Amino acid sequence: MREMRRESPYPMVSIAEALRTIEAHAAPLGVEEIDILAERTPGAPSPAGRVLAEDVYAAAPLPDVPKSAVDGYAVRAEDGLAPRRVLGEITAGGDAGLVVEPGTAVRIMTGAPLPPGADAVIMVEQTEERDGTLQIARALSAGDAVHAVGQDIAAGQLVLERGATLGAPEIGLLATVGRTRVKVYRRPVVAVLATGDEVFDPDAEPIPGGVRDSNRYALLAAAREAGCETISLGIARDDEALQRQAILRGLEQADVLITSGGVSMGTRDLIKPLLAELGTVHFGRIAFKPGKPTTFATVGGRMVFGLPGYPVSSLVSFEVFVRPALRRLQGDARPERPKAQVALLDPIRPSPDRPEYQRAIVSLDGGRLVARTTGAQGSSRLLSLRGANALLLVPPGERTYQPGEELEALLTGPLQ
Amino acid sequence: MREMRRESPYPMVSIAEALRTIEAHAAPLGVEEIDILAERTPGAPSPAGRVLAEDVYAAAPLPDVPKSAVDGYAVRAEDGLAPRRVLGEITAGGDAGLVVEPGTAVRIMTGAPLPPGADAVIMVEQTEERDGTLQIARALSAGDAVHAVGQDIAAGQLVLERGATLGAPEIGLLATVGRTRVKVYRRPVVAVLATGDEVFDPDAEPIPGGVRDSNRYALLAAAREAGCETISLGIARDDEALQRQAILRGLEQADVLITSGGVSMGTRDLIKPLLAELGTVHFGRIAFKPGKPTTFATVGGRMVFGLPGYPVSSLVSFEVFVRPALRRLQGDARPERPKAQVALLDPIRPSPDRPEYQRAIVSLDGGRLVARTTGAQGSSRLLSLRGANALLLVPPGERTYQPGEELEALLTGPLQ
Repeated sequence: MREMRRESPYPMVSIAEALRTIEAHAAPLGVEEIDILAERTPGAPSPAGRVLAEDVYAAAPLPDVPKSAVDGYAVRAEDGLAPRRVLGEITAGGDAGLVVEPGTAVRIMTGAPLPPGADAVIMVEQTEERDGTLQIARALSAGDAVHAVGQDIAAGQLVLERGATLGAPEIGLLATVGRTRVKVYRRPVVAVLATGDEVFDPDAEPIPGGVRDSNRYALLAAAREAGCETISLGIARDDEALQRQAILRGLEQADVLITSGGVSMGTRDLIKPLLAELGTVHFGRIAFKPGKPTTFATVGGRMVFGLPGYPVSSLVSFEVFVRPALRRLQGDARPERPKAQVALLDPIRPSPDRPEYQRAIVSLDGGRLVARTTGAQGSSRLLSLRGANALLLVPPGERTYQPGEELEALLTGPLQ
Repeated sequence: MREMRRESPYPMVSIAEALRTIEAHAAPLGVEEIDILAERTPGAPSPAGRVLAEDVYAAAPLPDVPKSAVDGYAVRAEDGLAPRRVLGEITAGGDAGLVVEPGTAVRIMTGAPLPPGADAVIMVEQTEERDGTLQIARALSAGDAVHAVGQDIAAGQLVLERGATLGAPEIGLLATVGRTRVKVYRRPVVAVLATGDEVFDPDAEPIPGGVRDSNRYALLAAAREAGCETISLGIARDDEALQRQAILRGLEQADVLITSGGVSMGTRDLIKPLLAELGTVHFGRIAFKPGKPTTFATVGGRMVFGLPGYPVSSLVSFEVFVRPALRRLQGDARPERPKAQVALLDPIRPSPDRPEYQRAIVSLDGGRLVARTTGAQGSSRLLSLRGANALLLVPPGERTYQPGEELEALLTGPLQ
């Protein structure tokens, strides 16, 4: 049996130092091509959420020809208020072969190409047509209600930048410029391993004192939300051989391995020595709460995060340290959550010796962000994360922060 | 050929009236049971993003037995500073059958059940053990470093409420209390139909004046982001029979049908008359920009949204009118995007006659939200949505809003 350690052999690093160390190992993984029209195919993987690995330019201008911006009549502006003979109609889809000569007009629908000879459009509401003759209610200037070539997108214009995450408008833009295949960064594959003799799969009845494995399921969901593919490695008992085997199995299949539990100083905390044996442990303790024993290692170029076993420590450490790395691995130009100064609605007691990320609900009070605590902040109290959309960074010390004072918050979800 | 209309037969409704009308038809669809452990199964649908259709209570307290909160020694507090004989060790997983009698102690790991007789734990850093004898550095009180029964979750406590959206912490909570199967609302199935003779699939080369179909792909992505399953109905030419057929096909398979284009007043705008023929058109015009012709109908209990053809109108109308309905259909207790007062960084020119949702990028300036415009706000300029995370509600009028003035914004994405 291992000795119970009195002191960790790992120096305590600061939050900033830990983030810098991780960032130094988080270069984008690689590039692949995807079909942005996959949304039309049932069951096909959506392009939404992917991160562009190339700058995208428009080959042609949009519109490509001058078009009508309204339903109305295409005319020559210089004909003034004189009545015009209506030659026919052009719809958005069709070229009717009509030419607008002086004294004539053509019925035209929104989006239809302007017929040759016409230089303006008058909207239908400002016209009257009787027996093939058009009367217009006001004089026009050339270009009125004409949607000019390149007005929306110029030829050669940069429409999307490398590092942009694809959402609905970006998918629309790619479709508009005809870039139906684009280069995106590969999604990281993340394997998650739970450890601990006391840990049971949630559909089994735990022995008295046993706990149901919530961390693995929460971390798998969090990694997926961060844009990753996920692999569940199950639960490894507190046995060196079993845990080594599970870690190696994860590293074979995944870009990133996340373990839960086994990083403290107990006699059964085997993860750190195993990672030191298999690769390089870059840090094994962070001066922060909740999650001091959070560990970061690399094994043969793969990242390994050893997260603590307490559910809150596990998810908060994921959010603060792992998520930005997972976004960097997929090339996100904005890998970090937004930061804001928020005004407290409740008193906040800091930890005496370590900066602490306390869970809070940030809402909008007009244009001001205000934060309410989610209650008792124990590392095992998962309820403190329920509905939380922010992590308040509370500097260490003895004094209580009072309502109205401001603290920095990491915004982890939509505001309320 | 239809007449080109001078005036719409549909009365203009306000934004608020349109929202109320839609809300009246958006009751949750139905309930199904899901497996929240699906994250462990490759390819299985994730429970993340689903909305709970039941209140979830904890059957048992957490912890279920008193446990050690640290790595250290379980002792009797009343023994004071006297040395203790170490009887053995208890790890998180194991019950070693040890009993702490007066003058004894048991090595204990974080999370391990407190052995009978012990009432406090001292952390290893404050101890010394030599030849089976423990010296402790400070006196303890009963309960010190003990994780008490029910401290995290009380027996019978409400842990999650109906209407909550499942994210990583909520999935963790369900796993923790052993509720591996829960009732959630069914995801709406949304079918999207593009219309228009001028519209081409983006992987085909459009004729001069033709446009690539961006709306269908953007709307499918937006509906999926809103938690829906999607069906693409392709592009229907401007032909009554073809469009009727496509609409009926969509209504057969989907809870909600979204059409793009064909709702204006041109001779080829067939959607409104078709919806009036098949069901009830609740409104056909909204006093707002961009997207005045936005139409809402019900056909046999299914919702139909007729969105305008311009790309910006289509997506903004989706965001303002369709998305909240899709969230209501799946029981979301918070179906609406957050609203905030934001300070302008750029001058904003309102529309003279209609409230307008202008696209903007809202960022944090300390605790203050500030908005920068995304440039020209034309209904066809999809670039105005690129990177936008907010819709500024600009009241109609002649005066320009100046930098520093505040407007209400709908926050559609993470802040910057």
